[in-house]
Amino acid sequence: MSLIDLSKQVALGVDIGGTNTKFGLVNHRGEILAKGSIKTDEYEKVEEFIDALYEKVSPLIKQYFSEKQFDGIGVGAPNANYFRGTIEQAPNLRWKGVVPFAELMTKKFGVPCTMTNDANAAALGEMMFGAARGMKDFIMMTLGTGVGSGIISGGKLIYGHDGFAGELGHTIVKPGGRKHWSTGSEGSLEAYASATGIAITAKKMRAEFPDSMLNDYREEDIDSKVVYECAKKGDPTAIEVFRYTGQKLGEALANFVMFSSPEAILLFGGVIKAGDFILKPTKLHMERNLLPIFRNKVKLVFSELDEADAAILGASALVWEK
Amino acid sequence: MSLIDLSKQVALGVDIGGTNTKFGLVNHRGEILAKGSIKTDEYEKVEEFIDALYEKVSPLIKQYFSEKQFDGIGVGAPNANYFRGTIEQAPNLRWKGVVPFAELMTKKFGVPCTMTNDANAAALGEMMFGAARGMKDFIMMTLGTGVGSGIISGGKLIYGHDGFAGELGHTIVKPGGRKHWSTGSEGSLEAYASATGIAITAKKMRAEFPDSMLNDYREEDIDSKVVYECAKKGDPTAIEVFRYTGQKLGEALANFVMFSSPEAILLFGGVIKAGDFILKPTKLHMERNLLPIFRNKVKLVFSELDEADAAILGASALVWEK
Repeated sequence: MSLIDLSKQVALGVDIGGTNTKFGLVNHRGEILAKGSIKTDEYEKVEEFIDALYEKVSPLIKQYFSEKQFDGIGVGAPNANYFRGTIEQAPNLRWKGVVPFAELMTKKFGVPCTMTNDANAAALGEMMFGAARGMKDFIMMTLGTGVGSGIISGGKLIYGHDGFAGELGHTIVKPGGRKHWSTGSEGSLEAYASATGIAITAKKMRAEFPDSMLNDYREEDIDSKVVYECAKKGDPTAIEVFRYTGQKLGEALANFVMFSSPEAILLFGGVIKAGDFILKPTKLHMERNLLPIFRNKVKLVFSELDEADAAILGASALVWEK
Repeated sequence: MSLIDLSKQVALGVDIGGTNTKFGLVNHRGEILAKGSIKTDEYEKVEEFIDALYEKVSPLIKQYFSEKQFDGIGVGAPNANYFRGTIEQAPNLRWKGVVPFAELMTKKFGVPCTMTNDANAAALGEMMFGAARGMKDFIMMTLGTGVGSGIISGGKLIYGHDGFAGELGHTIVKPGGRKHWSTGSEGSLEAYASATGIAITAKKMRAEFPDSMLNDYREEDIDSKVVYECAKKGDPTAIEVFRYTGQKLGEALANFVMFSSPEAILLFGGVIKAGDFILKPTKLHMERNLLPIFRNKVKLVFSELDEADAAILGASALVWEK
């Protein structure tokens, strides 16, 4: 009799973005043993994309592992449906309609393929390998160009009846507020708390305050990084941009807490590089809007996963989730 | 060998309110075999309350059942904690602090006792015996004097890490909006969509429209029932009260849908007697604020449980939930 050495069981984690697809072979300890990437938008047909991925991945599998150690494939992709294994009407991908992605992958690779959206995958990655190890109830917020989320309740991802649950970036935080550039909704969290939203806020606020350092930059150069640089130098307008953003984010988080009562909220993505400029007002306005029974209990935690690897780790965690 | 006759297995369902406590012996089919009530606020000590309850219930059990058919006790109570079996800091009860209610009940009755808040119990009741039979993902909203909620995801109640999840009535729908009479929060759903909130809206709106029928009533007589009567008679102001309430409720429901993607939202309580006056604007504003991926999928359904019995049925469902 021999014990199974978990470090020798391996999964393929695939993170599909509009431009690039990253992949990695990950073991049960969350170590990435080999990785690479291909261009997503070079392939007009999904079958060509999968063929190209297979050509890159299969030599790595053959080189490092026996086939029986290969447990399966996990995929994080925009508009991916966990229940159906499909990518559905993804606006940023060339493959239109409903793509039976998991089925095509299994046919090609000969192992099971599980998929979900990228933020859900990131939440699983944090639970298995990151800051949420040991937690059974938490919410993962990814604050980048957009705002994504993954919700873990009772140790399981919330998928909802159709596999599309956890679109917290699109919840409305200010009814009748800022119009979203892509969805058209008014006052969604993403319209304020994404890097895109922060740039919009900064452009509005600098127009009101001609003395602000933010006016030293060209319109097209204003982004959340520039706002952070100005805030660090003490520019009150830049600081106010993050305070306002944090207020909107904190108000939204309070509502999420009263929904699923998580132990922690994990924050991930470019926006959180602003550190206390955004974290302090976020915490203040979250606490202020909570019922007393929830106050001073929910941890706001920064992700512990390396940003470059988080999506791959998260996708691979899908394989071992069940 | 004999099959178990489920109609002969019985649970005690107890619904504790600030003034009255209702109880019933319920079988596995959701039939109430015997019921009764005692005054909650007559008993200064919780032990006295439990003694009084036992005196009323035990003769019924002895009369109708053998002890081996008595599966356990389920209790719905304000601020009840599922994990700890406690009632904690309930503002409307005389028993202060943290009351180990389930433990005291088990000691007295000799069977397991499970408890949760009343809206969670109602959600279980709908899943086991009501309009949500066969559903695994739905949200129950109780719209009465206050606004309560119970969330079922993947066939299970969401309790959160501390047992207090699902306080959707206290989520903020209008930041900086109407101050809540008891929690002090600003712009919560309960401040608008409860019967209390509707009366406040009606009093404000009738002051603006002197011609409204609502002005035929004394200030203290304005309640959601009066508003409904006026709306039925075609009073535009009364109709606007429900339209505005439905807008706020619909906006909130859209956010809830993007959290857990339920198959349906069940509505229960006195407020829904207003029927289409509130249902139509609720649906309109829910759909309007949803991402396209969620639109025209979520059913808005009225509860199928008799209002007088729902709380007892829900509480008894706790016994068979596990």
